[in-house]
Amino acid sequence: MSNIKITPLADRVIIKQSDAETTTTSGIIIPDTAQEKPQKGIVQSVGKGTKENPITLKVGDTVLYSKYGGTELQFQGEDFLIMRESDILAIINK
Amino acid sequence: MSNIKITPLADRVIIKQSDAETTTTSGIIIPDTAQEKPQKGIVQSVGKGTKENPITLKVGDTVLYSKYGGTELQFQGEDFLIMRESDILAIINK
Amino acid sequence: MSNIKITPLADRVIIKQSDAETTTTSGIIIPDTAQEKPQKGIVQSVGKGTKENPITLKVGDTVLYSKYGGTELQFQGEDFLIMRESDILAIINK
Amino acid sequence: MSNIKITPLADRVIIKQSDAETTTTSGIIIPDTAQEKPQKGIVQSVGKGTKENPITLKVGDTVLYSKYGGTELQFQGEDFLIMRESDILAIINK
Amino acid sequence: MSNIKITPLADRVIIKQSDAETTTTSGIIIPDTAQEKPQKGIVQSVGKGTKENPITLKVGDTVLYSKYGGTELQFQGEDFLIMRESDILAIINK
Amino acid sequence: MSNIKITPLADRVIIKQSDAETTTTSGIIIPDTAQEKPQKGIVQSVGKGTKENPITLKVGDTVLYSKYGGTELQFQGEDFLIMRESDILAIINK
Amino acid sequence: MSNIKITPLADRVIIKQSDAETTTTSGIIIPDTAQEKPQKGIVQSVGKGTKENPITLKVGDTVLYSKYGGTELQFQGEDFLIMRESDILAIINK
Repeated sequence: MSNIKITPLADRVIIKQSDAETTTTSGIIIPDTAQEKPQKGIVQSVGKGTKENPITLKVGDTVLYSKYGGTELQFQGEDFLIMRESDILAIINK
Repeated sequence: MSNIKITPLADRVIIKQSDAETTTTSGIIIPDTAQEKPQKGIVQSVGKGTKENPITLKVGDTVLYSKYGGTELQFQGEDFLIMRESDILAIINK
Repeated sequence: MSNIKITPLADRVIIKQSDAETTTTSGIIIPDTAQEKPQKGIVQSVGKGTKENPITLKVGDTVLYSKYGGTELQFQGEDFLIMRESDILAIINK
Repeated sequence: MSNIKITPLADRVIIKQSDAETTTTSGIIIPDTAQEKPQKGIVQSVGKGTKENPITLKVGDTVLYSKYGGTELQFQGEDFLIMRESDILAIINK
Repeated sequence: MSNIKITPLADRVIIKQSDAETTTTSGIIIPDTAQEKPQKGIVQSVGKGTKENPITLKVGDTVLYSKYGGTELQFQGEDFLIMRESDILAIINK
Repeated sequence: MSNIKITPLADRVIIKQSDAETTTTSGIIIPDTAQEKPQKGIVQSVGKGTKENPITLKVGDTVLYSKYGGTELQFQGEDFLIMRESDILAIINK
Repeated sequence: MSNIKITPLADRVIIKQSDAETTTTSGIIIPDTAQEKPQKGIVQSVGKGTKENPITLKVGDTVLYSKYGGTELQFQGEDFLIMRESDILAIINK
C-alpha cells in the first residue's frame, strides 16, 4: 500500500483517496452529494515537517481531508493528492 | 454520547449539534430566525492542540459556535461539525 | 446582574447592552442617529484570555464597544453580545 | 480639560479635536480644504498599552492625527475621538 | 532649516520636499514627467522609533522617497510630509 | 547537468524541467492534459536558505513542482525555472 | 561603475540595468519578448540590512531580478532601480 517512491517536502503528506462508497449494499448507485463533504484517504508518504509545522501523521493512517485542500499528482499510473498536514481534518481511529 | 472514532488534527474539535428548539412547549412550530444565531452543540472529540493553539475544551462540553465556522462531516450515518477551537465562542456552564 | 451561566472562550467577553437613552427627560422620543456611535454595555462574563491576548476586563465593568464588533447571542430569553476584548474600545470609570 | 471619566482599552487614546481655524484674524470665513489634512487635538485619556504597543502619549499632549483613523464618541454632550496610538502621526512640542 | 516644532510618533519622520528642478539653466520650464519618480527632500524631525522599527535617519539628511508614501501636513504656513522611515527609499550621501 | 553558473538568492532553487512524456512507447503523441498537473524537474542550483526557510534540496534532486510556482529564466540559450523551495511539492526517491 | 552617491535604506539595493542584448552578432535587431523575463543588472549600492532581512549582496555583483520588483530612480542623468534584496532572484557567478 505505501511503497510510493516520493517524499513530500516540508509539512506535506501524500494521500491515496479511498473509493467513495457510492453503491448501497443492494448495489444501487446513489447520486453522491456527500462527495462535497470531507474525503477519506490513506497516508502514503510524509515530509520531514518544519520547525513551525511538525508532522504528526504516519504512513498508513486513515484520514479525512477537504477535497479542495490538495494538488492532484499522477505517479506510475496512479492518482494521489499532496497537501499540507494542516489541511487534513482528522484521523480515523483503528 | 462521545464514542466517535475520529480524532481531529491539531487545534480542531468535533461537535454534535444539539437539536434546535423550534417547537414551543405547546408543540407549535415557530419559524426559527434564531437559527442565524450561534448554535449549541456537544464536543465529541478533541485534537491534541498546537503550541500556538492549545486545546482547552473537553469531550462532553456544551458549547456555542457560529454556524458558519466549521466543516460538515458525515460518519456512520450521523452528521457532525469539525472546526478549530478558536471558532467556538463559549462554553455553557453545567 | 452577572449570573449568566456562559463562559466565553479565549479572549472573548459577554456584554449586556445598556438601554439606549432615546427619550429626553421630558419624555420626548428623539430620532437616535447616535446609535451608529459606540454602544454602552455591562460585562457579564469573561474568558480566561490567551498568552497573546490576556483579559483585563472584569464582570460588572461598564464598557463602550462598536455595535459591529460582536456576535448576537440569545440565552434564556435575553439578548447578549459576545466579542473579543480587543473590540472593546473603553471602560467607563465608576 | 482632561477630566473625562473614560479609560481607553489597550493601546487606544481619547482625543478632543481642537477647533479648526477657519476664520482669518479679520474674521472672514475661508473654505477649508485643509480639513482633509491631519487634524489637531488634545489627548484626554490614555490606555495602559500592550506589550506590543506601549503607550507613549500623556494626557494634555497636543497631537496631529488623520481624520479617518478613529471612532467618534459622544460622552456627556461632548464629541471625542478614540483611536489607537499608532494612528497618531505626531506630537506638537510645547 | 530644521526648527519645526513637531515630533513624529514611533517610526515616522517629517520631510520637507526639495524644489523640483523643472527649469533648465537657461530658464525654460520643461514638463516634468520625472515627478512620478522618487522625490528628494530633507529630514526635519524624526520619531523615537520602535523596537521593531528603529529610526536610522537624522535631521538634515537628504532622502529619496516615493511621492505616494506619506501624508501631507501643513504647519505654520509650510507644507511637509510625514511618513514611516520604511517608506524612505535611500539617503543621498553628502 | 548541473554546471549552471547562477546561484539563487535566499530560499530559492533553479530547476531544469524534464521533458514531458507526451509520446507513448509506440510513438503516438497524446494530448497532454496531465501538463496541468505537477511537473518533474531536476535541481540545478540552490540558494543558501534563510533562518526562517533553510534549504533542504541538493543539486541533482528530481523534484515535483507546480507549474505556476516559479519564474521562467533564460540562460545561455536554455530555459530554467527559479522558485522558492516552499513551492516544491516533493522529491522523487532514487 | 559603482560610485553612485546614494545609500539605500534598510534591505534595499540599487541596480544598474545591463543593456538588453537585442541585436544578434550579425547586427539584426530581433523583437525581444524575452524582456518579459528576469533582467540582468549590476549592484551599485546596498543598504545596511535589517535584523529580519540582512543584506547578502555586494557592490559589483551581477544579478537577475524581476522587471516589476523595483522603483525607477533617476540620478545625475542616469537611470537606476531601487528594490528590496528579497526581490532579487539570483546572482550570476563570475
